[in-house]
Amino acid sequence: MRLPSGFRDISSNMAILYETVLDKIKKVFRLYGFEPLYTPHLELWETLRGKYGDEAEKLLIWRFEDVWSKEWYALRYDHTVPLARHFSSASYALPFKRYTIGSVFRHERPQRGRFREFMQADADIVGSPYPEADAELINLVYDTMCVLGFSEFKILLSDRRILTGILRSKFGIKDELAVFRAIDKLDKIGRDGVRKELERYLPSSYVEEILEIISISGSLDECLKKLESEFSNSLSSLGIEHLKEMSRYILERAGRNVEFSLELVRGLDYYTGPVWEVIVEGIAIGSVGGGGRYDELLRIYTKMDVPATGTSFGIDRLIESGIQAGIFNIASPPKVFIISMLPDAYSYAWSIAYELRASGIPTELDLMRRKHSKQREYAKKKGGAVFVFVGKKEIENKTLAIFYEGERHEMPKNDAVKFICRLLKDYLTTHQS
Amino acid sequence: MRLPSGFRDISSNMAILYETVLDKIKKVFRLYGFEPLYTPHLELWETLRGKYGDEAEKLLIWRFEDVWSKEWYALRYDHTVPLARHFSSASYALPFKRYTIGSVFRHERPQRGRFREFMQADADIVGSPYPEADAELINLVYDTMCVLGFSEFKILLSDRRILTGILRSKFGIKDELAVFRAIDKLDKIGRDGVRKELERYLPSSYVEEILEIISISGSLDECLKKLESEFSNSLSSLGIEHLKEMSRYILERAGRNVEFSLELVRGLDYYTGPVWEVIVEGIAIGSVGGGGRYDELLRIYTKMDVPATGTSFGIDRLIESGIQAGIFNIASPPKVFIISMLPDAYSYAWSIAYELRASGIPTELDLMRRKHSKQREYAKKKGGAVFVFVGKKEIENKTLAIFYEGERHEMPKNDAVKFICRLLKDYLTTHQS
Repeated sequence: MRLPSGFRDISSNMAILYETVLDKIKKVFRLYGFEPLYTPHLELWETLRGKYGDEAEKLLIWRFEDVWSKEWYALRYDHTVPLARHFSSASYALPFKRYTIGSVFRHERPQRGRFREFMQADADIVGSPYPEADAELINLVYDTMCVLGFSEFKILLSDRRILTGILRSKFGIKDELAVFRAIDKLDKIGRDGVRKELERYLPSSYVEEILEIISISGSLDECLKKLESEFSNSLSSLGIEHLKEMSRYILERAGRNVEFSLELVRGLDYYTGPVWEVIVEGIAIGSVGGGGRYDELLRIYTKMDVPATGTSFGIDRLIESGIQAGIFNIASPPKVFIISMLPDAYSYAWSIAYELRASGIPTELDLMRRKHSKQREYAKKKGGAVFVFVGKKEIENKTLAIFYEGERHEMPKNDAVKFICRLLKDYLTTHQS
Repeated sequence: MRLPSGFRDISSNMAILYETVLDKIKKVFRLYGFEPLYTPHLELWETLRGKYGDEAEKLLIWRFEDVWSKEWYALRYDHTVPLARHFSSASYALPFKRYTIGSVFRHERPQRGRFREFMQADADIVGSPYPEADAELINLVYDTMCVLGFSEFKILLSDRRILTGILRSKFGIKDELAVFRAIDKLDKIGRDGVRKELERYLPSSYVEEILEIISISGSLDECLKKLESEFSNSLSSLGIEHLKEMSRYILERAGRNVEFSLELVRGLDYYTGPVWEVIVEGIAIGSVGGGGRYDELLRIYTKMDVPATGTSFGIDRLIESGIQAGIFNIASPPKVFIISMLPDAYSYAWSIAYELRASGIPTELDLMRRKHSKQREYAKKKGGAVFVFVGKKEIENKTLAIFYEGERHEMPKNDAVKFICRLLKDYLTTHQS
């Protein structure tokens, strides 16, 4: 029996790493006052339809006809549309700040490093049209990256209205989304690829100039000044002004990691204002997260004017980047293994396991009726840190023999639990922080 | 846009409760040395086929033909079959102890309290045929229930071989699974319903006697003695002996919550030995969890003899039971809300929010450019616990005005963060334990 192609299991130490990372992200989300929302993995196809653009619609959304009801369902494609669907049927005090962590599904061609089910962690603010809300998300992204241990990363920032204004006023282009979609492929197909794609419907002189203009990047302040002086149409000015206001509320230390990039447009159709992406420097993995403002999307569901902005982390890329950057440790977390030297020691072993667990120490003991040498082999394979031996002598004297990092310690049973707690304190503080 | 029928969103305080419960369960699973495993929400239909019995096969498994590949997929129905599929392609030191927490899907008729997607938390031990492994799971179940705050609960225990042996040797019944399936419906259709169902293929004298026999329940020791003296076939004896050995390793305090019940058979076909269920007393919700040994299931995937045993919690029922029993609190977790008395105070407010968050205090501040009275309204709706007011005076004197439980405290900004930490200490210790 095989896994469906393009899917995978996440197990053992890698799964522990996932949980550690998700717990840390969750904690930051909560510090900012976001509340969790769980939505189903399935939505009605009509809910997802027409929200993600052509490629998603035609190919990438997993949709199917239910065998029994003949209704069309779809597996969720992101967390944003389910949020919008949920919001439209609930009644919240605004702003509504929610986070969601879970799987989304894309019907990609199976290939190395691309999965058909992957995990995203999103935080969104519904109800505020103001730059403060976007700035809060930039700060949240910054704090999350720091809490995870990243130091060398950039938050690239732009506002779609800046480039839209330029495309419209300077080149008379009406369908800016087509240009955005081409530019969004820069990473994949390179500058020449984008040039070819744009030249299919734009004069090559335009294309050259557009490629020149979008290369504006660097310090936020300086880029905004430059854009302000060179492109003075009203739409671009809205975008520039929005970013300027945001920068007032971006934390000073976060600001050092923020860079402007006019190339940054993001692939999804629904963005209407500021957009951003997080890049880990020196790691060729693409962005580990991104987001932006989508002031029009909720109107489809609510028939009302509901501004919203959100940010998302791609957990798989984040973890891959952290591993490559040497930040994440995928070694086994230490455990205690109790080794019974003879069958008679087994119930003594059992009672010690119980005490250790009650003190918060992960503990295993033999469940296979193996000889002590085999028990040790198992413990070593599992990456055991502390070995507790119990034999005849230990039972008689109510003592324990403890091996840790090559040293043997013998002591009364009652002292041993405290002693082991101290040994594993480092581990426990890391995993409970 | 609507939710698909039979599905739901879990939001706000209820979602926080879910996360708190799942975190606690995970912690106990880890204490026992279990490692996490994430499997996809989708499996190939052929992987699930023929594993769950007739009703599942014909009706309850969500399966569909992929529009593009024409392959048949299915949404996972439980965590056990994906574990077996995973195990067969991996290579683990035995015993392999893993936990999985996540959604499973059943194509139930939509009705109150029954959902088509619901959450299960499973812990399984693969590789050990011994009663110690089953006993470890009973202890794990006991500890989990205690950590969650339950005190009035029972763990009902039986071994399928006991009843199978009786049915075969005393009544010559060959298809015990059909009888099990009928008995498993006792809760739903009552004794008369089961009688009718059994009478369709068994003489009524048999049915009466069987109904009489399965009513044996109560203290594990006493029931086993009674069964031993009354039913001495070899298969029943294996079951009785297994439970006896288990009881040696069930913790003393856990043992007080364990009761034997011959009625308990569990619905799934794959169980081969001990089976158990957890019932919260006084709450008419059915079992909140259960499990058992399935020594044959893994052979289908591995072509080898791989004994296994596992236990599962139904998270939705567990939470519903805890709420009904008054154990779980679904009030908002307290937060700090910073109220800016005038627009000029906004950046001061922002810097305080940053300091509080950096100290681990969940904090919100105005993102809507509202007047202070509206900010207070929002904070009250969100169940805010601590209000921090900043106005002209506070900015000038670098102080803060803090309202908590009807009292006003004014102090230098630097002292305020520590003060608020102390106020919310109770909350923080609860949520970080």
